[in-house]
Amino acid sequence: MGRLALIGTGLIGGSIGLALRSRARGHPIVGYDRDPRAGQTALERGAVSELASSASEAVGGADVVVLATPIEALAGELATLAPWAGDAVVTDVGSAKAEVVDAGHGALGDRFIGGHPMTGSERHGIEAAHEDLFDDAWWILTPTELTSASAYSTVRYLAQSLGARPIALAPDAHDALVARLSHVPQLAASALVEVALADGADDSLLALAGGGFRDVTRIAASNPALWVPIIRSNRSAVLAVLARLEDRCARLGETIRQGRWHELHEFLAASRSARLELFVKPAQVEHPVTIALVVPDRPGVLAEVTTAAGELGANIEDLRIIHSTEGGRGRLELVISGKPAAEALVAALHARGYRAERADDVEQ
Amino acid sequence: MGRLALIGTGLIGGSIGLALRSRARGHPIVGYDRDPRAGQTALERGAVSELASSASEAVGGADVVVLATPIEALAGELATLAPWAGDAVVTDVGSAKAEVVDAGHGALGDRFIGGHPMTGSERHGIEAAHEDLFDDAWWILTPTELTSASAYSTVRYLAQSLGARPIALAPDAHDALVARLSHVPQLAASALVEVALADGADDSLLALAGGGFRDVTRIAASNPALWVPIIRSNRSAVLAVLARLEDRCARLGETIRQGRWHELHEFLAASRSARLELFVKPAQVEHPVTIALVVPDRPGVLAEVTTAAGELGANIEDLRIIHSTEGGRGRLELVISGKPAAEALVAALHARGYRAERADDVEQ
Repeated sequence: MGRLALIGTGLIGGSIGLALRSRARGHPIVGYDRDPRAGQTALERGAVSELASSASEAVGGADVVVLATPIEALAGELATLAPWAGDAVVTDVGSAKAEVVDAGHGALGDRFIGGHPMTGSERHGIEAAHEDLFDDAWWILTPTELTSASAYSTVRYLAQSLGARPIALAPDAHDALVARLSHVPQLAASALVEVALADGADDSLLALAGGGFRDVTRIAASNPALWVPIIRSNRSAVLAVLARLEDRCARLGETIRQGRWHELHEFLAASRSARLELFVKPAQVEHPVTIALVVPDRPGVLAEVTTAAGELGANIEDLRIIHSTEGGRGRLELVISGKPAAEALVAALHARGYRAERADDVEQ
Repeated sequence: MGRLALIGTGLIGGSIGLALRSRARGHPIVGYDRDPRAGQTALERGAVSELASSASEAVGGADVVVLATPIEALAGELATLAPWAGDAVVTDVGSAKAEVVDAGHGALGDRFIGGHPMTGSERHGIEAAHEDLFDDAWWILTPTELTSASAYSTVRYLAQSLGARPIALAPDAHDALVARLSHVPQLAASALVEVALADGADDSLLALAGGGFRDVTRIAASNPALWVPIIRSNRSAVLAVLARLEDRCARLGETIRQGRWHELHEFLAASRSARLELFVKPAQVEHPVTIALVVPDRPGVLAEVTTAAGELGANIEDLRIIHSTEGGRGRLELVISGKPAAEALVAALHARGYRAERADDVEQ
């Protein structure tokens, strides 16, 4: 992986440094943060091995650059840093991806790959950073047809090295997903607090709220300065999901007004089943299954294969690209957790015209 | 308090029995549950001291009757049991109050007072009952101008004896409050799960949901069979709050579509402050302050005074009614936690035409 540059040493950047250096003591990480105190604290805590005096100095000579700055700063930073980044692979950790990925490819071509570690956002700053922030967390990567295989593999390896589970999704698929799972729930939690307050004079009675209200609205305590730029960067996906929620409220109102209690029951029961299944952990003892496919040596193949796996929720445990000496073709090997996921992926790849096959089966 | 009859020995009924008998060993409690196994388990666990073979047998000879059955059964039970209840004070524990309180006064006159312990509803059944379920929980009582002072005082004392903090609200105020703090958040959590699922083919990706989504949607796993009757009984308040949430979603969509980011920030910041303040516990060392007022000996005074305290969030620690021997008037003494709450209540009572005054002040 070589020399790492961390631009931004707050919660995420600082935790990347701490996690990497706890696993690979002495790994060279040069850090930079606009706030000198944050940089200094990162150095004192051992999250970086040295500090640069500017972002461009930090990326000079780096093999991998992680932009861990607020999402609204990313496009500008990508343009500013590109001339100094040499051949480095560059990634970011922003919570919305389509806009950033466009800016990244524009500035860096195939050496940019977007990323988003799914770690929650209630806390922030280097003080909150810790080395196990990414343990078992999903780390979504968003390769496109412009992403090079080596950029993808490098950042995927970095995420794994930090304890995270990388998974690939197309930028648009990522943005639609986080609108549903994170951005609109965030807005809804804040809306529920506002609605609860709406009677003004009754504010003191909010203290009567029970544990349910506490849970539903916990994320309403998040920092607006972080959230506004996220919503802004993901506005079209957020608007689509928000419209669905609004429509759902309207239809629920009709259901209740007309006394269609069976329909209300069906609605609650379906959500209940989905919610109960949601966090049932898959068995951790799933067999690794290797899938091999011959791929044309053209851009975009890797993105197509890995995002197909991502959309199935198939976890790629390992990935090898064997370039053919004959040129024009290569062999891609993926190790997938679990036979059902591997078989679903083989089928999905067949549907896309790939000749994929299981290359081994530990059960045999 | 005398002999207690518990109709329904599930989570709430069973916990009432366990809590009372853990504090007053040997207190006579006769129980009845439509499900003989639930009744038997309640007896075995010591939640009741004896079992009756029917609800009407259970209430015969009781001084206090607690109806802890599902909300949809309450109106029917009140009518059925009234002829057998003698002079007993009767209360219930349903999650919506206006309909039940109407039925209660219709069946029992001034001996009925509605109640609602605020303890959450994810679990149910006698197996989940425990003696500290009500510790520090709010127990809303809903006296009306038809409620007798002795019915109010008796059930208030019962709630305190179980470890809960009784507070009085008018039935409509209760119903509006729980629509905002509980019923609509419940519907919203289920709606967010449904909206997250809406892409069908992507279901496997829901596993990427982080802690925020987990919190927001936790109550979506609640039992629809409990919730549909609650929503049904509180439909008009629920509809009003649901319409506000729908409107909020629509206006948020406009804010985002038009790029009014400062407005979005203000919205998130206001909800954040409210949420952060919500569960800041008031200092537990507040001075008790006694308020005394001469009250006319007419129905409704107690409801007016206690619900005024409830609407201010003022916690009535103790309450004494001293009937004047001259007739026509009485003296009501309330002990309120904290000087600010006591002073606010005195002002509110003055505004209602009462001559209330602080009768002591431990600081002097």
